[in-house]
Amino acid sequence: MTRVSILGSRGYTALELLKILADHPEVQVVAATTRQEGNPPLTDIHPCLTGRFDLDCQNLTAEEVGRVSDLAFCCLPHTASMEAVPQLLEAGCRVVDLSADYRLNDPGVYEQWYQHVHTDPTRLETAVYGLPELYRERIRTADLVANPGCYTSASILALAPLLAEKLIDPQGIIIDAKSGVSGAGRTPKLGNLFSECNESVTAYGIGTHRHTPEIEQVLADVGGLDVRVAFNPHLMPMDRGILCSIYPRLVEKRSQKDLLQLYRTFYSAAPFMRVLDRIPRTRDVSGTNFCDVTVCFNRDQLVVFSALDNLIRGASGVAVQNMNLMLGLDERTGMLRC
Amino acid sequence: MTRVSILGSRGYTALELLKILADHPEVQVVAATTRQEGNPPLTDIHPCLTGRFDLDCQNLTAEEVGRVSDLAFCCLPHTASMEAVPQLLEAGCRVVDLSADYRLNDPGVYEQWYQHVHTDPTRLETAVYGLPELYRERIRTADLVANPGCYTSASILALAPLLAEKLIDPQGIIIDAKSGVSGAGRTPKLGNLFSECNESVTAYGIGTHRHTPEIEQVLADVGGLDVRVAFNPHLMPMDRGILCSIYPRLVEKRSQKDLLQLYRTFYSAAPFMRVLDRIPRTRDVSGTNFCDVTVCFNRDQLVVFSALDNLIRGASGVAVQNMNLMLGLDERTGMLRC
Amino acid sequence: MTRVSILGSRGYTALELLKILADHPEVQVVAATTRQEGNPPLTDIHPCLTGRFDLDCQNLTAEEVGRVSDLAFCCLPHTASMEAVPQLLEAGCRVVDLSADYRLNDPGVYEQWYQHVHTDPTRLETAVYGLPELYRERIRTADLVANPGCYTSASILALAPLLAEKLIDPQGIIIDAKSGVSGAGRTPKLGNLFSECNESVTAYGIGTHRHTPEIEQVLADVGGLDVRVAFNPHLMPMDRGILCSIYPRLVEKRSQKDLLQLYRTFYSAAPFMRVLDRIPRTRDVSGTNFCDVTVCFNRDQLVVFSALDNLIRGASGVAVQNMNLMLGLDERTGMLRC
Amino acid sequence: MTRVSILGSRGYTALELLKILADHPEVQVVAATTRQEGNPPLTDIHPCLTGRFDLDCQNLTAEEVGRVSDLAFCCLPHTASMEAVPQLLEAGCRVVDLSADYRLNDPGVYEQWYQHVHTDPTRLETAVYGLPELYRERIRTADLVANPGCYTSASILALAPLLAEKLIDPQGIIIDAKSGVSGAGRTPKLGNLFSECNESVTAYGIGTHRHTPEIEQVLADVGGLDVRVAFNPHLMPMDRGILCSIYPRLVEKRSQKDLLQLYRTFYSAAPFMRVLDRIPRTRDVSGTNFCDVTVCFNRDQLVVFSALDNLIRGASGVAVQNMNLMLGLDERTGMLRC
Repeated sequence: MTRVSILGSRGYTALELLKILADHPEVQVVAATTRQEGNPPLTDIHPCLTGRFDLDCQNLTAEEVGRVSDLAFCCLPHTASMEAVPQLLEAGCRVVDLSADYRLNDPGVYEQWYQHVHTDPTRLETAVYGLPELYRERIRTADLVANPGCYTSASILALAPLLAEKLIDPQGIIIDAKSGVSGAGRTPKLGNLFSECNESVTAYGIGTHRHTPEIEQVLADVGGLDVRVAFNPHLMPMDRGILCSIYPRLVEKRSQKDLLQLYRTFYSAAPFMRVLDRIPRTRDVSGTNFCDVTVCFNRDQLVVFSALDNLIRGASGVAVQNMNLMLGLDERTGMLRC
Repeated sequence: MTRVSILGSRGYTALELLKILADHPEVQVVAATTRQEGNPPLTDIHPCLTGRFDLDCQNLTAEEVGRVSDLAFCCLPHTASMEAVPQLLEAGCRVVDLSADYRLNDPGVYEQWYQHVHTDPTRLETAVYGLPELYRERIRTADLVANPGCYTSASILALAPLLAEKLIDPQGIIIDAKSGVSGAGRTPKLGNLFSECNESVTAYGIGTHRHTPEIEQVLADVGGLDVRVAFNPHLMPMDRGILCSIYPRLVEKRSQKDLLQLYRTFYSAAPFMRVLDRIPRTRDVSGTNFCDVTVCFNRDQLVVFSALDNLIRGASGVAVQNMNLMLGLDERTGMLRC
Repeated sequence: MTRVSILGSRGYTALELLKILADHPEVQVVAATTRQEGNPPLTDIHPCLTGRFDLDCQNLTAEEVGRVSDLAFCCLPHTASMEAVPQLLEAGCRVVDLSADYRLNDPGVYEQWYQHVHTDPTRLETAVYGLPELYRERIRTADLVANPGCYTSASILALAPLLAEKLIDPQGIIIDAKSGVSGAGRTPKLGNLFSECNESVTAYGIGTHRHTPEIEQVLADVGGLDVRVAFNPHLMPMDRGILCSIYPRLVEKRSQKDLLQLYRTFYSAAPFMRVLDRIPRTRDVSGTNFCDVTVCFNRDQLVVFSALDNLIRGASGVAVQNMNLMLGLDERTGMLRC
Repeated sequence: MTRVSILGSRGYTALELLKILADHPEVQVVAATTRQEGNPPLTDIHPCLTGRFDLDCQNLTAEEVGRVSDLAFCCLPHTASMEAVPQLLEAGCRVVDLSADYRLNDPGVYEQWYQHVHTDPTRLETAVYGLPELYRERIRTADLVANPGCYTSASILALAPLLAEKLIDPQGIIIDAKSGVSGAGRTPKLGNLFSECNESVTAYGIGTHRHTPEIEQVLADVGGLDVRVAFNPHLMPMDRGILCSIYPRLVEKRSQKDLLQLYRTFYSAAPFMRVLDRIPRTRDVSGTNFCDVTVCFNRDQLVVFSALDNLIRGASGVAVQNMNLMLGLDERTGMLRC
């Protein structure tokens, strides 16, 4: 059994990781960290894990975790991750980092969007971006995988086939993204209270959302051209799920049928991609690692839809998928439940 | 007291009308129709009206309603309305029609989108489109007001100032609209069940939604040019509210500040328009007749947001606003409650 | 116009008060306080009030408020209220206090349930409990009205007719109460996050909820006997509304019909009480000051149901109803909207 | 691989069964029936199963299903089940029946509560009630298992330890049950529309709910005494989950600690029972086959809480648990996912 650990156990991504790992046949969770005093049982922090884990959370350093683990999932906030990851790697522990700290190649871009100097810039070159549909082979041998953002995965997976074939204008792609509230995390804030979110829809972070440069960087890599997106996130009155409605400009006439075929070919080896003939619903991917996509036309306008569970396919599910690849396992191991 | 009636009492727009009219100081509801046998009390159909109305619903003809009413709200489905409206008008009763039957000027366009021949085409010329912010003066003297659709109002009010000033390309305006489930009506269908809609977001009617020609017709009238929109409606897991996120192409450089000023000027005489410096939330207009709008930039891309309550501002509230104008009252009468 | 003020403007009860007062024909809001620096516009704190109030919140003392107001609504937390109320009254300002500080007659009971010594115990004798259906006449002339708790109102209004007639065992009344999340207030806490509350039901405060002694005190006053309730509050995945399902032991055989008649007689002069022949839904009272009640039998077991909007009838609506009585107005003034 | 089939594929319990069976290592789904014409693919009926099943639904008779299956899950409505089950059994196919048709021992009681004569009364004697925590050994060898109702499971599992020890008065047990909307099924009706259920709580079926005789029958069997419950179901604005709040009268003084120990002993061999020291939340059992229970005191009043997922533990999960036992497998097979 591979020994795995979680750094930062309190949040929703840690919880979803633990729920998947509880049934994973090839790994054992050996440590879960918290800054909270008193070594609280994991089930105090996440009551739904009662009966599944007999483990206390501990206030361990990254180095201590690294010494007892073969692989660690880093669920720390950005800037905290770049402190912990070097210690984990130096202790010989491979890492799937769920923060944003190793996603961007250019430390200058990181500084621009996160208002923080990157303290581990050289490692940005060796970190592998953890989107298996694009970087499967590199992930297998990586020591450090930068797990993608939730909006990012939904946006990239929807657009990659079109950009790879240079079928759309890489400038001015409009992404209208709709997310459930769990994407905002488990720290209490006015904006994620039930009585503020329920029965309400709004947009936020127009022009400033930090997933923007991540989307542009990966899509530029796929398409070999500079990409510029207008990324417009919206908050939905639901717990989980993301739907991206994307409006690209087609530069070459193609039918819906051709485009669906293109997507099916592009994702033929991807077990968690479902190319649909109908518009996806977030409900149909909830609790799963699937990403559902389709393309259609609104008269002349091409529209691409993608749906995923922001906590699973957008965070903890793909993290396990990455771990499976790193461990030489079938990427579906422990995760086929629909 | 003006005698008003409701044709078609069972649905949500009839309910919201009745809730507003219950406190309206200048009108009295004299009849409410239903096809249901047995003259059920209105409070059997809408329990929340208990104590507010002592009225039985009756299976009356439009002609019978017209004889006892000064003004009727027609809450019938499309195609049924064009049967009833001529009878009401011939009986001397003015009409606010909440169906789509008198919204489109061209019976051919009606036939194309509704798959039904229009049986009262000549009256399309005299019907006034009931958006007071654009047609206030004509509404005052109209005998037949075609009350706008919910998505339509949100879209038009968001775009009218830009098109009036010819600041955007009238072709290829992308509208990403998000609506609560009450917009789908009160008739039980799989698609509006709680267990299908809750915790889910999806899109529908891409390229086929019937509010499309209505939006294009009115905006063309405002801008003096053909308008073409890609209208993309989405279903949200909430009861009521619409948010439109609109992505037009600016043809002339303008700052956010200039554009907000343009909107404030355009709507300076409109008591139910609120031009905001921030992104609207549907929660903030819920239960009110307000439409909140703002404009901002996502880097280069202009984005316009509008929010309204689909049942009030998108249907029954604006219907009362139209009635107030038709009766020579202040348009806010009976409706200021925020 | 009567000059009224709000102490503590940030919460949901203050917001609902302001929404009602915005349309109230007889009062003007002259001040709203906050501890927040910089005199923020009221519409910054509550965006939905945009266009309804042109008022800045100020960091005023209770004395300062008292000098410019005829009546103040105190929306402060418990223990803060008993600091402010004496200053308001001494400045000649009448008070409706929405906190718990003046609800209990006995300072010892207050100390037991609130773990805080009451610093203004003598005023407990003159404060009038603000449930108009029971204490209408005393409220008219009161200078200090202790506005009831939300669960309390629903429980008392459901049980008062039975206890007044001594038809039930006053010991061992089981109250199973279900509330929306807004009852937990607007301060961010883990327990009122969307992602914790949505799609979940739970109970809390079993045996310790502070509305218990309030219910027992008022019902004892109504029935002339000691009353003991097992009060069991539950948290529902909704914003607003309370349903109480109450299981009393009938000591004398009565039919449902007799009991409904008893309730109708008891509440014949109460414009906001609706005695129904069917089980109430919280949806049907949402946004209104109505309390809907019914009684029925589950085979031998008497069941009483009551439903109200926790923020309106359970807090701000009844506060305005109390104000109306204090000002000699019809108690419905400004509030009939269903 | 055991060949299993589903009769009646359209509803939510069939969907949840299929989701569990998709990953079950020991069975293969060989047939799924529908009355719908044209052999629609299963994924047309349940889009979320895309990629998991390559199976068309067929309009097969029970006999045809029986011939190709080792075990069938009958998800038909009551009265339809008693037509199909005899045919299945006669074809040599074992059955887990999710309807109510074989749950009650006495055909007279069935007729009284279901207003329908039982057409297969002799088989009521051999059918085994499918609650593994009470009837595990009999289930192993049964040919026909009557899968329990959702409310029933939650109620019985909460009360069985107390009645087995004769610690409570078996008469007059008050059960206040709260359920998500999916319990009402997938057939469109006014009462399960999003816009009727959302933001609302109500009760229904007081004194008439059909789970009442089922609860009483099984608890009488456990306790050896007649049992009478006042069962009060409520509808919550959520998709799934049941919380039962139960108010029994203790006939012998016991501490909370003693009672929790009693529950732990009673359920020591039950892998899906979790006896908690805190009040359960439905969220913590959602998507799982766990039933969480606790006992506590509200001053003198004993309160028992139980929580489960109505579609999993209350229907399809326990159906697979029953199948596992019938097939000689570990009852947890295919179901540990939390």
